Amino acid sequence: MNTRSLVAGRLGGGEKTFSVVDRRDGSALEGAFVVATREDVDAACRGALEAVSSLASASVRAKFLERIATELEADAELIVARYQAETALPEGRARGELGRTCGQLRMFARVAREGHWVDARIDHALPDRQPLPKPDLRSMRVAIGPVAVFGASNFPLAFSVAGGDTASALAAGCPVVTKVHPAHPGVSALVGAAIVRAAEAVGVHPGVFSMLFDQGIEVGEWLVDHPAIAGVGFTGSYRGGTALMRRAAARPVPIPVFAEMGSVNPSFLLPELLQSDPAGLAERLAGALTMGVGQFCTNPGVLVTVGEASVWAEEISQRLAGFVPTPMLTEGIAQAYSEGVERRNQMDGVNLVVDGPAHLFEVTAAQFVAEPDLHEEIFGPSAVWVRAQDLAEAEAVARAMGGQLTMSFHGTPTDLEAAKPVVQVAATKAGRVLFNQVPTGVEVCDSIVHGGPFPATSDGRSTSVGSGAIERWSRPVCWQNAPEALLPPELQDANPLALHRLVDGKRVV
Amino acid sequence: MNTRSLVAGRLGGGEKTFSVVDRRDGSALEGAFVVATREDVDAACRGALEAVSSLASASVRAKFLERIATELEADAELIVARYQAETALPEGRARGELGRTCGQLRMFARVAREGHWVDARIDHALPDRQPLPKPDLRSMRVAIGPVAVFGASNFPLAFSVAGGDTASALAAGCPVVTKVHPAHPGVSALVGAAIVRAAEAVGVHPGVFSMLFDQGIEVGEWLVDHPAIAGVGFTGSYRGGTALMRRAAARPVPIPVFAEMGSVNPSFLLPELLQSDPAGLAERLAGALTMGVGQFCTNPGVLVTVGEASVWAEEISQRLAGFVPTPMLTEGIAQAYSEGVERRNQMDGVNLVVDGPAHLFEVTAAQFVAEPDLHEEIFGPSAVWVRAQDLAEAEAVARAMGGQLTMSFHGTPTDLEAAKPVVQVAATKAGRVLFNQVPTGVEVCDSIVHGGPFPATSDGRSTSVGSGAIERWSRPVCWQNAPEALLPPELQDANPLALHRLVDGKRVV
Repeated sequence: MNTRSLVAGRLGGGEKTFSVVDRRDGSALEGAFVVATREDVDAACRGALEAVSSLASASVRAKFLERIATELEADAELIVARYQAETALPEGRARGELGRTCGQLRMFARVAREGHWVDARIDHALPDRQPLPKPDLRSMRVAIGPVAVFGASNFPLAFSVAGGDTASALAAGCPVVTKVHPAHPGVSALVGAAIVRAAEAVGVHPGVFSMLFDQGIEVGEWLVDHPAIAGVGFTGSYRGGTALMRRAAARPVPIPVFAEMGSVNPSFLLPELLQSDPAGLAERLAGALTMGVGQFCTNPGVLVTVGEASVWAEEISQRLAGFVPTPMLTEGIAQAYSEGVERRNQMDGVNLVVDGPAHLFEVTAAQFVAEPDLHEEIFGPSAVWVRAQDLAEAEAVARAMGGQLTMSFHGTPTDLEAAKPVVQVAATKAGRVLFNQVPTGVEVCDSIVHGGPFPATSDGRSTSVGSGAIERWSRPVCWQNAPEALLPPELQDANPLALHRLVDGKRVV
Repeated sequence: MNTRSLVAGRLGGGEKTFSVVDRRDGSALEGAFVVATREDVDAACRGALEAVSSLASASVRAKFLERIATELEADAELIVARYQAETALPEGRARGELGRTCGQLRMFARVAREGHWVDARIDHALPDRQPLPKPDLRSMRVAIGPVAVFGASNFPLAFSVAGGDTASALAAGCPVVTKVHPAHPGVSALVGAAIVRAAEAVGVHPGVFSMLFDQGIEVGEWLVDHPAIAGVGFTGSYRGGTALMRRAAARPVPIPVFAEMGSVNPSFLLPELLQSDPAGLAERLAGALTMGVGQFCTNPGVLVTVGEASVWAEEISQRLAGFVPTPMLTEGIAQAYSEGVERRNQMDGVNLVVDGPAHLFEVTAAQFVAEPDLHEEIFGPSAVWVRAQDLAEAEAVARAMGGQLTMSFHGTPTDLEAAKPVVQVAATKAGRVLFNQVPTGVEVCDSIVHGGPFPATSDGRSTSVGSGAIERWSRPVCWQNAPEALLPPELQDANPLALHRLVDGKRVV
């Protein structure tokens, strides 16, 4: 396992190192990872800029992405073993996440190869139009340039070095410079090596991928400041995400930041179902809340009951009290969780119903609406139970909240029909609205939206999961009166790539 | 003609007034326009938020937009007369721009009514999928909420109160609060009144449209800061656009800004055509440079000749020297133009070839590359002639430049083939790349891109002209496992709106 940064096909310099422990037992893990230098960052970014044309061909990009998946699978045993040690997450989760990561890479390979995502549009000339002739105009999406990707603490594979941001950026034609999350450098080193092997095998420019180690924030700051970088992908905390937003906006040339910063994913438990199946509801939500020790962006952190809910409360309290936790992802996350729970417990009028290992706080709807601190995420298996007396109170709760990745409704058909006004509010606040399902477990497909208005993300007009994620790394370019020979194949009349296109106002499939 | 702000169906308050003069002769024009108060701004924004649901129906939005066009046409004579007085632009331009404005409104009515722009996607459930069932997921674009629109100085109709930003925002379902450009308050008052009549006729909530007068920047700042505002559209100067970007990024909830800040639109004149048709090239470019006294975002402000160009230089110099100007749009623009020309003339090594009424400066490619001040726009009929000795120098010039709305190439087929490397650079720098046509005159259609990387715009991933402009005011929302009755019609299985959709990975038209 390599412990130096991967810098456009070379190994990084530097002398400062850091290491990590086995999260399951605290023992030392192999590897002194070398913090990247400013020169490494510069070389990585310059290399990325040089490599842009190397990703011009969609079929090359597709082959590269597929080869990355193959290379990851070849190292599956090494990766899964190190993953478990660095995260304390179980083997099933490691294998599942590796499978998902490879699946995402292959999905984006398909998206790139099919090519429809470029949104090709053609308006033919009308030379005889009065009062002015109409010119020939054609447009398509193109890559924005090199992208910086910040690995997430809670998805060492699916949202890190070869995760969704990297896969979608490469699929769009953007070289990627990743900043490794310091909690899982070993997994990252193995994944990074797989990507480098794939780049060599497919014969793309080595600058298409670089990977930088750091334990602090300096390398990430240099990266976002570098003039070659054209966009940023990030999954992590509100604090980290908004710091990147500010930094990117303050550049001489501001660049877009796609930061997924999590949310509390309010779940509304509606009266008829609360009465008819309190145990089932408790089981479903306790499971979602404690899965992976609650370390998901889509963790249901606010549970709004509408009407009488004492049986449900008893049922979920039993389950949460009986939860058997594993260590959290990092010591820092564990400490922030304890502090967050303690701070919330000190708040006036907040009733701690379940005090560990998972935590459930009880408040009235009026308290929740009046106290924005209660809307904030405590990353881990903690939820606020908000007691709404009726749907009007539930609607007030929904209206009081900021942007969310998800909002969920649990109810009978009668419940859901009655809750329509709250559902309509949810659709203005969330990226995804669910019915009788829990928000954890994000399907990777065309229709998924893993995004949502600020502060859930920096840019609610995007998704970081699913095929739509590729659009973030692109911008439209229009060609006017271009000779056929200078047009990209996507826009040539012969349509050699057999794309779905919008031609003279008609959708041609 | 009303001289108060239009605030969600009521007249604004305030006492401070301003008036404008007839730009053709300096005489006083009717109307003391009342500067909006902070209360007006607040009431307009609150009204807009209340009005969002009033624009939920696409057919209502379409009728509203069409009615605005009809009402504008009903007042055409009044509008055209006032337009000429406030701008000193000729009647033909006024009528042309009014026609374009109504055409844009009707195009966005069609876009809203057809509804394909929502990008509806459906992935049906696979309950038996292993290892996990696949949920039913459906997504579409929805309106982001109330939008602030800043009127442009140089397009009192097509980029102002009822211009492209307003039309596209209303088409998406976003209520609009406009800040009038102080150079044409009378035209704005007439246009605003037409929109209010249209809103009444169609029966939408009066908060769907407000219009605020101001001569300074305070009203605009209050508007961008207001928590109800979810996005900003702006056409104007780099200084104004970047001030809005900073302000929007500093809000507690940052919002997107779509600022079109202009560019110098480099035009490359290639060797064979420079020899075979120097007069034709000179005629075409002198016309584009002086049309509307050069007051277009797409004005060709940098002319790069490749190889020997003395005949062309003589031809264009004659034409520019013979240009008969009309007054510029405002006294401020005229003064900034004089100062800009004077400052450029003081620069070392810059040769003033044509000294009024239009201006042409001559520099070498090396000078241009080394001196970023030469890349800046002087709004008006001024251009920098850059003498490149060969295509390698031309490419260096292209690489040295920041983001542009357009880059153009003029050449024979042989010229264009040889210039391919420069064309490829242009496609990374510009929103639109043209061949043997001038960039002025922006066609309104599906394929147009009126945008480009910063600093041409705040967000190069968008266009402010054409049907694609509607996407700026939307974000995707995903519905998971929703009962059919709660789904918007766009996502129901029966497809009652007959939309083009992406269903289970297949494009269904």
